[in-house]
Amino acid sequence: MALARVARSGLRRSGGTVGNYTTERNTFSERVSDHKSFVPSLEESKVHSNLTCLSTAKRLNHMSFWSRGIRVTPHYQFPSADRLVELESEQDRSRYPGLEATKPGEKPRVVVLGTGWAACRFLKGLDTRIYDVVCVSPRNHMVFTPLLASTCVGTLEFRSVSEPVSRIQSALATSPNSYFYLASCIGLDTSNHEVYCEAMSNGGLPHEPYQFKVAYDKLVIAAGAEPLTFGIKGVKENAYFLREVNHAQEIRKKLLLNLMLSENPGVLEEEKKRLLHCVIIGGGPTGVEFSGELSDFIMRDVQERYSHVKDYIKVTLIEANEILSSFDVGLRQYATNHLKKSGVHLMRGVVKEVHPQKIILSDGTDVPYGLLVWSTGVGPSGFIKSLNLPKSPGGRIGVDQWLRVPSVEDVFALGDCAGFLEQTGKPVLPALAQVAERQGKYLVEVFNRIGKQDGGRAFSAKDMSLGDPFVYKHLGSMASVGRYKALVDLRQSKDAQGISLAGFVSWFIWRSAYLTRVVSWRNRFYVAVNWATTLVFGRDDSRIG
Amino acid sequence: MALARVARSGLRRSGGTVGNYTTERNTFSERVSDHKSFVPSLEESKVHSNLTCLSTAKRLNHMSFWSRGIRVTPHYQFPSADRLVELESEQDRSRYPGLEATKPGEKPRVVVLGTGWAACRFLKGLDTRIYDVVCVSPRNHMVFTPLLASTCVGTLEFRSVSEPVSRIQSALATSPNSYFYLASCIGLDTSNHEVYCEAMSNGGLPHEPYQFKVAYDKLVIAAGAEPLTFGIKGVKENAYFLREVNHAQEIRKKLLLNLMLSENPGVLEEEKKRLLHCVIIGGGPTGVEFSGELSDFIMRDVQERYSHVKDYIKVTLIEANEILSSFDVGLRQYATNHLKKSGVHLMRGVVKEVHPQKIILSDGTDVPYGLLVWSTGVGPSGFIKSLNLPKSPGGRIGVDQWLRVPSVEDVFALGDCAGFLEQTGKPVLPALAQVAERQGKYLVEVFNRIGKQDGGRAFSAKDMSLGDPFVYKHLGSMASVGRYKALVDLRQSKDAQGISLAGFVSWFIWRSAYLTRVVSWRNRFYVAVNWATTLVFGRDDSRIG
Repeated sequence: MALARVARSGLRRSGGTVGNYTTERNTFSERVSDHKSFVPSLEESKVHSNLTCLSTAKRLNHMSFWSRGIRVTPHYQFPSADRLVELESEQDRSRYPGLEATKPGEKPRVVVLGTGWAACRFLKGLDTRIYDVVCVSPRNHMVFTPLLASTCVGTLEFRSVSEPVSRIQSALATSPNSYFYLASCIGLDTSNHEVYCEAMSNGGLPHEPYQFKVAYDKLVIAAGAEPLTFGIKGVKENAYFLREVNHAQEIRKKLLLNLMLSENPGVLEEEKKRLLHCVIIGGGPTGVEFSGELSDFIMRDVQERYSHVKDYIKVTLIEANEILSSFDVGLRQYATNHLKKSGVHLMRGVVKEVHPQKIILSDGTDVPYGLLVWSTGVGPSGFIKSLNLPKSPGGRIGVDQWLRVPSVEDVFALGDCAGFLEQTGKPVLPALAQVAERQGKYLVEVFNRIGKQDGGRAFSAKDMSLGDPFVYKHLGSMASVGRYKALVDLRQSKDAQGISLAGFVSWFIWRSAYLTRVVSWRNRFYVAVNWATTLVFGRDDSRIG
Repeated sequence: MALARVARSGLRRSGGTVGNYTTERNTFSERVSDHKSFVPSLEESKVHSNLTCLSTAKRLNHMSFWSRGIRVTPHYQFPSADRLVELESEQDRSRYPGLEATKPGEKPRVVVLGTGWAACRFLKGLDTRIYDVVCVSPRNHMVFTPLLASTCVGTLEFRSVSEPVSRIQSALATSPNSYFYLASCIGLDTSNHEVYCEAMSNGGLPHEPYQFKVAYDKLVIAAGAEPLTFGIKGVKENAYFLREVNHAQEIRKKLLLNLMLSENPGVLEEEKKRLLHCVIIGGGPTGVEFSGELSDFIMRDVQERYSHVKDYIKVTLIEANEILSSFDVGLRQYATNHLKKSGVHLMRGVVKEVHPQKIILSDGTDVPYGLLVWSTGVGPSGFIKSLNLPKSPGGRIGVDQWLRVPSVEDVFALGDCAGFLEQTGKPVLPALAQVAERQGKYLVEVFNRIGKQDGGRAFSAKDMSLGDPFVYKHLGSMASVGRYKALVDLRQSKDAQGISLAGFVSWFIWRSAYLTRVVSWRNRFYVAVNWATTLVFGRDDSRIG
């Protein structure tokens, strides 16, 4: 039941694929092609926007997430959403240090929340001759999410899939009035055009938590989403997510630890089987790619280098419905056969409870495990939920077709944290890198255009045309399934005339496509070098830390 | 005072240099060239050796080391030295699962404690047609310590300096009766030829702590040393050591965090200066190399990529005596001038107390810091101290000239945890990679030789000649000082006829020498690739985790 909901919600983890939104888009883009006529209807959704601080967030207790010392996304992204101060008076607000509103003669300031696909694509394209830019995020790098699964087993190095944000937009490091702040946003004051932040300090500063404010001319919210757990007991405490580089590091450490523990003398057969049972929940692209990588690792490296326990290791992929449900039926069948042949055990089931060493399914089956990876899609984070802004279906920040938050001035939202408002008649787009990147590219063009017309300053673009609305064209979906095989589904791409491919050629396209998409030349080079050395020398299995 | 002791003790951190032991060695090697006549005098030092379990270790409280969540060597190496069980009766011992003594017809079993330079060189050379081998260590890889300083600032990747032990000796992974156990040794029973171990489990096994025993025919103790802190208050809680890959990771994270924190709006000038003051205690090769790397990082990368705070960052190297005291006086002067020119502030001083944000020197000076790295040499670990075995001057395990522990049968010790007994008339060798590696090479030749003469089994080599005693030839010392400059001191090498060099040529020799010494082709390739990309693209500054 719980897992079935994911498939229906149309939310999928970034980093993969998922299609079938194009048809709906085409229908609606015609209906709403004249944006001028459309704005008034959006304004009806205007909400009280004075001080959208998270007083509700106080009741959230995110700390239960981290009880195992494993950081999962939400902690990393918004560790302090539950430590919010309520800013009630002018006096309160003035006691915060920070960047004051820009003055005439200074460049307008764009504040960007986040360093994911959407934020980084936006930052990359921003014309810093027009704007100063401040980026606020709890991580200082972008993660190339589609290749994260490969880092868990050592096919790629962790650094090869991360790109420092100051290399994506060098003004952050060098321009006198542009900054990157390693901090979480903890509140918005849309009427005063200010964001409130808390530094990720960890004991380094004398007064902690260290909070400050940043005034904006334009605000771009691209703060991402967090993994969905459907309220299932024990998921946050026991499962690993796969959203950040440190998640991949933790998964790798656990996998290698379990391999080594099972070699200890006197460990019972049953215990060895449990330790070496890797269970993946969720048959979307991330779950499938991770299963594929894991079976590659087992077939090549575990056989050779953990030969004492090689017969005990097993990979199980549990999904409530069909795996890769958004792909063409032929590709789905190919993936199923290929995974089975690679030794991945596919299982239909819905998780009821998660215990430290076993999962209980809704039909009462016990599944003992040593490593549990949870990848059933993402949903709005506590921070996004607590914002007093209009919401799209599914609880994301609601935007119009120009990615504006219609009820307030100068606020834009994009990526996994944003969705079209119901009134736009457009569907909420899937949580994909592809969508986020396209939105970042679209929005930065809008910004550069209005900036050139002196619309960059606060309240100055009110009556300015933003140009064409954002239209999403799905280019296609890809997923690797291990052993030099991948799926490429281009049914929805007009240029490719509905091709769908599976096998080695697809795998080659998959690798080449990602290699050209990796952000910097340094990382392109490293990814290629990593792949070559894995081929020649096998994977590295040092367990560091 | 405290620091002065280091220089006198002749103990230096692995990974660098330090000479002037050759003279003494030459004197004594003549005196003790006939080992047969020498053994009896050693036997006088025989101690009660029945069950050398660590009852004293119970009183040690190592947990204070890790109060900051930073793992320093001793925790990592011997986390459970204070959780020792006392094995008092035969019944007690039999309840442990484990590997029983080998039977006639089976290969004799060598148990190796540790995965450092000495242990890995030994493992690499062991003839596995003669022996089965079991390696017990809390880390599954060797660390190429001389290049560790370079990983802190991103010149090299972490994986490039670590080598999985199963690649060094493949029998550990593939041979049916050879094993690698991720565990700490917690006790020896030399009369029963057994070691007691505790798995590094961390919640993965049902009964924890998970303890087991391994019977040996021969035991090789190469368990290393731990950083010396001279009992100075606050060192363990506040300073970073630089002995393991995860130490380097922590230093890197702290450095990048401080750079980013100091950019936060509203941080006071004084506070910025403190956050960006990097203090290194100890002017040995590791301290100097780390200072050099740091100043390179500041001059190239911080200037470019943290331009808002670049004027606040400062590196101070504090040493009680002279830096690089073991090097030729000309080289020392060169290093001093070069470091000063690179902006490293050299300071004479002795640390009295360490507080979370400042050091107090013995003359009363306060030194505020943001990052503190402690590298004042190493000394015996709690585990080594607690063993009821004869000791060398300085508290290491005492060995004779064949690296045997003379009071017990079939036990050998080498590397940083071993030292010649006073009776041998030989000096305790410095704690250098060079010494450890040479000892590993020597001992494995002894083992392979006696193994061929059927001396591999327990108690079977009692009257067998072990061949020539171990003689240490110092090949020379090297240290890089940053900015393509290094020192090479070959005064004690006969072949080089007393050459000492400083400058770019030395740096080239330094790089080439390390490149050829890195253990595997995979890592040689990666180190070269890392160096090339750092040159072309600069250092990566993603802060992961």
